[in-house]
Amino acid sequence: MRITKFIAISCLLASTVAGGLLFQAGAAENDSQKRIGYGRGGRMQGGGVSERSKEPIQPIPITFDDNRAKTDLGLKLFFEPRLSKSGWISCNSCHNLATGGADNLPTSIGHKWLFGPINAPTVLNSKFNLAQFWDGRASNLKEQAKGPIANPMEMASNHELAVNVLQTIPEYVKWFKEVYGEGKITIDNVADAIAAFEETLTTPNSRFDWWLKDYDDKISESELQGYALFKEKGCIGCHNGFGVGGSDYQKLGVVKPYSKDVQTLGRYHVTKKESDKFVFKVPLLRNIELTAPYFHDASTWSLSEAVNIMAEYQLGTTLTKDETGNIVAFLKALTGDQPSVIFPILPPSSESTPKPNRN
Amino acid sequence: MRITKFIAISCLLASTVAGGLLFQAGAAENDSQKRIGYGRGGRMQGGGVSERSKEPIQPIPITFDDNRAKTDLGLKLFFEPRLSKSGWISCNSCHNLATGGADNLPTSIGHKWLFGPINAPTVLNSKFNLAQFWDGRASNLKEQAKGPIANPMEMASNHELAVNVLQTIPEYVKWFKEVYGEGKITIDNVADAIAAFEETLTTPNSRFDWWLKDYDDKISESELQGYALFKEKGCIGCHNGFGVGGSDYQKLGVVKPYSKDVQTLGRYHVTKKESDKFVFKVPLLRNIELTAPYFHDASTWSLSEAVNIMAEYQLGTTLTKDETGNIVAFLKALTGDQPSVIFPILPPSSESTPKPNRN
Repeated sequence: MRITKFIAISCLLASTVAGGLLFQAGAAENDSQKRIGYGRGGRMQGGGVSERSKEPIQPIPITFDDNRAKTDLGLKLFFEPRLSKSGWISCNSCHNLATGGADNLPTSIGHKWLFGPINAPTVLNSKFNLAQFWDGRASNLKEQAKGPIANPMEMASNHELAVNVLQTIPEYVKWFKEVYGEGKITIDNVADAIAAFEETLTTPNSRFDWWLKDYDDKISESELQGYALFKEKGCIGCHNGFGVGGSDYQKLGVVKPYSKDVQTLGRYHVTKKESDKFVFKVPLLRNIELTAPYFHDASTWSLSEAVNIMAEYQLGTTLTKDETGNIVAFLKALTGDQPSVIFPILPPSSESTPKPNRN
Repeated sequence: MRITKFIAISCLLASTVAGGLLFQAGAAENDSQKRIGYGRGGRMQGGGVSERSKEPIQPIPITFDDNRAKTDLGLKLFFEPRLSKSGWISCNSCHNLATGGADNLPTSIGHKWLFGPINAPTVLNSKFNLAQFWDGRASNLKEQAKGPIANPMEMASNHELAVNVLQTIPEYVKWFKEVYGEGKITIDNVADAIAAFEETLTTPNSRFDWWLKDYDDKISESELQGYALFKEKGCIGCHNGFGVGGSDYQKLGVVKPYSKDVQTLGRYHVTKKESDKFVFKVPLLRNIELTAPYFHDASTWSLSEAVNIMAEYQLGTTLTKDETGNIVAFLKALTGDQPSVIFPILPPSSESTPKPNRN
């Protein structure tokens, strides 16, 4: 025990000293760059303002987990199969943190093996989206989180049932009380906790982000050429910012009508405006190598082909094989630290917990 | 960096010293008690030989992770949905480490939402089973692990396809080579790695185990009475050892024919011996409060009712409400530290990886 204490104290002292040093280093730089901390990826970073901060893509900031009780509750709920009617499907079933925050299927498998109508977007970095779902029908992550729970083709429960399940599990009642100060669980708070957890699911420290912070040797010549092409050809017009996408809606088929899927109307479902037909939220390109198949209709499994399709339908250009290769190389440099989570241990149901229903 | 090194060296020194001290302490005791270490539960334990070591239930030993490369590979494979035909079902889908190593369903949901014929047993502490599956048809965990991958009602893949999927993912090729020294992945090695991981899934440090190690205040009077009844009434005859079960086959309905399910013949399927009809492997009672519903046929969700059914059909006795309550209290004291795992990050498929097939 004395030895454990010694280690604990050493570590505490060491981290205090390190914290102090880094804080001082930060203080000498621009104030806006001062926040230093651990993301779920776990690596520390600091430093000054780079000339490259003027680039149209920004490195993903390392964020603090400001409310650990809430994000821990959200983590449990994210993996909670009892939020589904069957007791078998959780948020993670379709937004699998093991595989880039998506399910790598054309469209998701839901209750009773029903297939969804559209490819599941990744949950990683989803906080950088201007709105959620391909058509942007949920204005934020909290609103989004409520959708699949009650969607008969996904988790197939309903908000009342999902809350009832949690309310009959004493540990959840305790945790919600600790976080929200109320003994009564609400679907709003369920969604709030899930969203808070999802906001921690960013992927900093991609090699490209290090390059943006002046570490020249982090990316190769081919990747750098790919980035130059990505800007030159016009991809950057839509795919920019922290998420390399997610900040805008765009018509799929700007210069050439998109013929692979003429059923899915996109943003039109929300606005009912004729001009919003085939308009979709621009997807994030962070970690794109992890989330095949691509596009809302999963029309290709190949990242090269996806790049060529974009060039053809959105930019009216044809890329050479080398150009495509370089752009793909650049896109692969956008893969960051994947969120590291301890697989949660969920509390058992009580005898009054509604039973799962597989039918 | 210097500080990190200092901490690392301190920790190394400290643990070496601690290891030495504990080893010496152990040396003074019975040799068989000498192994001390960390399980996935994370707490350390040592100590001498208790009088209670003569009890028919033994505390779960803390085990060493002797081959971390192999168990880490097994962890990834355990959560690998691409071992299934659909690319959506993993070992963890039915043996969820978040919920006691089981799925808490009457029978498991498999490919195309097919329902299995029997309740999924927990993977936790399954190394203490004399054989695997309810009918013991797999003699060990390695043999068991191959079953669900190729079962059309479960993961619905086949061994050739599952291996092909892994073989086309460069990281898996590298990891298998590191562990098994071969560039060619085999289903035997896949199963071996999964089994090695599963062997780490023990749940030491239950309150009852602490009591077995002379910590009197770890369990209540009611729990202790429950244990006395558990022995007195005869439950202990089958439910004993490390796993509180798992070391024997028994007929369900010893003193009264079991009428709730007359379809499932159990061990008879393996031996074809008439006397093995309705004979099943005695299930483990470790963490039993986490794994409702109960019995191979999931005939009850209530642990109290399960205890009463056992009394009626196996022991020919009727328990008072108090007796049942005390036995249930004792059973809940068998819940140990649940395995703590970092959710694995899986490598992306390559363009030659066979695509998932949901149909």
